[in-house]
Amino acid sequence: MPIATRAFAATAADQPLSPYSFERRDPGPDDVAIAIKYCGVCHSDLHVVHNDLGGTRYPIVPGHEIAGVVTAVGANVTRFKEGDRVGVGCMVDSCRTCASCQAGEEQYCVPGMTQTYGSPDPKGAEVGQTITQGGYSDRITVDQAYVLSIPDSLPLDAAAPLLCAGITTYSPLRHWKVGPGSKVAVVGLGGLGHMAVKLAVAMGAEVSVLSTSDRKKADAERMGAKHFLINSDKDAMKAAAEKFDLIINTVSATHEIASHLNLLARDGTMVMLGLTTEGLPVFALPLLMRRRSVAGSLIGGIRETQEMLDFCAEHGIVCDIETIAPHQINEAYARMEKSDVRYRFVIDMAQIDQAA
Amino acid sequence: MPIATRAFAATAADQPLSPYSFERRDPGPDDVAIAIKYCGVCHSDLHVVHNDLGGTRYPIVPGHEIAGVVTAVGANVTRFKEGDRVGVGCMVDSCRTCASCQAGEEQYCVPGMTQTYGSPDPKGAEVGQTITQGGYSDRITVDQAYVLSIPDSLPLDAAAPLLCAGITTYSPLRHWKVGPGSKVAVVGLGGLGHMAVKLAVAMGAEVSVLSTSDRKKADAERMGAKHFLINSDKDAMKAAAEKFDLIINTVSATHEIASHLNLLARDGTMVMLGLTTEGLPVFALPLLMRRRSVAGSLIGGIRETQEMLDFCAEHGIVCDIETIAPHQINEAYARMEKSDVRYRFVIDMAQIDQAA
Repeated sequence: MPIATRAFAATAADQPLSPYSFERRDPGPDDVAIAIKYCGVCHSDLHVVHNDLGGTRYPIVPGHEIAGVVTAVGANVTRFKEGDRVGVGCMVDSCRTCASCQAGEEQYCVPGMTQTYGSPDPKGAEVGQTITQGGYSDRITVDQAYVLSIPDSLPLDAAAPLLCAGITTYSPLRHWKVGPGSKVAVVGLGGLGHMAVKLAVAMGAEVSVLSTSDRKKADAERMGAKHFLINSDKDAMKAAAEKFDLIINTVSATHEIASHLNLLARDGTMVMLGLTTEGLPVFALPLLMRRRSVAGSLIGGIRETQEMLDFCAEHGIVCDIETIAPHQINEAYARMEKSDVRYRFVIDMAQIDQAA
Repeated sequence: MPIATRAFAATAADQPLSPYSFERRDPGPDDVAIAIKYCGVCHSDLHVVHNDLGGTRYPIVPGHEIAGVVTAVGANVTRFKEGDRVGVGCMVDSCRTCASCQAGEEQYCVPGMTQTYGSPDPKGAEVGQTITQGGYSDRITVDQAYVLSIPDSLPLDAAAPLLCAGITTYSPLRHWKVGPGSKVAVVGLGGLGHMAVKLAVAMGAEVSVLSTSDRKKADAERMGAKHFLINSDKDAMKAAAEKFDLIINTVSATHEIASHLNLLARDGTMVMLGLTTEGLPVFALPLLMRRRSVAGSLIGGIRETQEMLDFCAEHGIVCDIETIAPHQINEAYARMEKSDVRYRFVIDMAQIDQAA
């Protein structure tokens, strides 16, 4: 029997989000039905709602930082049972057969992963859905292969953003082999940046934060950063030349790139995590002179996401969050546009009734 | 006693190169005195002569693809003796103490390597030289630590360009671990590109060449390339999506970059070898979607340059060259501006008398 679901959806690029009711599919043999308790609010949600990258189909229920509790499982489901604390991140399916999927890097699925919201939904027909709908909702049904287990020691609210902000920063830190002795710079202390700091510190790196002002300096130090640089301070930037093995760049602003490449040591990499629509002017000289790289990284695979959650449990890492009720989402968006959040809004789905 | 040296020098950015006489230093205890037999003509030479990057001091004798024979050695020199066939590449010294020098990556020397021409020359005072002067000349004196041994099986003329074009392509192929099964694309079949093809083929890679026309298709195939793509052919480019592990980009044209990134498989890298003065617009989307990288690479260290020469001897690899007399250099430059060379001009220094 289809599952009645209450949600907040965008109905057009220029409209505020509003209450929306629809149905989730009844769990099939491989599905896990989840009561969503919390959903983080990611900057990508705004981009999709505002159709910044084109292609958004309305109504759309955003949200891909989902934490909840299992309510039912299909016949083939062995890894989860009713009552389990679970998470769902940015994808709910992928082709499972391409080289990326076989390697456990489903986020780089060649035909393309099925994103948690806004992707064509081959399993939605029975409940009249053509696209996937995300976590600003109280129920979701997901194939067990794309469901994560949230360790008991992590609170569901502060763990929810780990499913995107956490894995998006954890994966490049691991891929570029950050460990004791690594020197890591994090550009931008926002939802992604603050997780990058906490995770890199826990991995044993010496972490510096680069920001446009010293507003967040105390926060950065509290999270374990050893150095704080203001990136308009030319003397400080000059003094930091060739200091870092890895720069995690969470900022999308075009002008940031060139001046930051000189901060990399030989063979250093700047990893871009933000999706910009304009080309970033990268100059060949700083790349050639120290064999530096500019790379991109996109969330992480399912296996690595579980590893990240376990790592966070082991090290007591969660996101710094501000909890809101579902009907406060438009206000939250307005504040995010001004970078006025420390460091992630999380929607408390228990308050969905207040909006009805 | 200083060594009388005949050369061709540029005296100003807009003047043709002309005969120039000066003195080289008498070999000190660690020096090797070399009679230059051949010198390759690199595109960098034109940039410096024309002051494209600024900072050129005149008169300047270009040339950093030097092959010759030892005429004398200093007291401490053990690795070379009179009559040895030797080469000198893009650098003649470096700090020797920084992390890069200690790692044998002298080309990334933190205080900066002493380039073969155009760098301040601390050892030039005794002969009235303030900057280093390069290989468009019949004599040179170089510290033994920066002199390479040219294996007997390699002809000096066709080996000369290995000292820059060879190592510039060999080093990234090794650094990014090209071997049997690797899929490598080479963009631009010029002096660098044709070496990249030969070297990558010898390493066991499946090599494709991307070019603006099919003019050089037969050459590419003769060098061992399996596929030839015209990069304005949208259907062919689309069909080649995600095919390559490594793209060696020898072209400096700004517009080339974005359309080529999609040809990289997951975790693939495009290595830029050409120095462009403008920023290359790199889009975040293709980087993020497959964790791709854009990197730079600069020549190679001394140890690796020797390894490259030995590899070339082992595999019978040399450059395709067109030999010219020193007084034909201006004509050669004009042809290089039109990409009219297959694939490297090499100056035959035995003909220096014809210009006197």
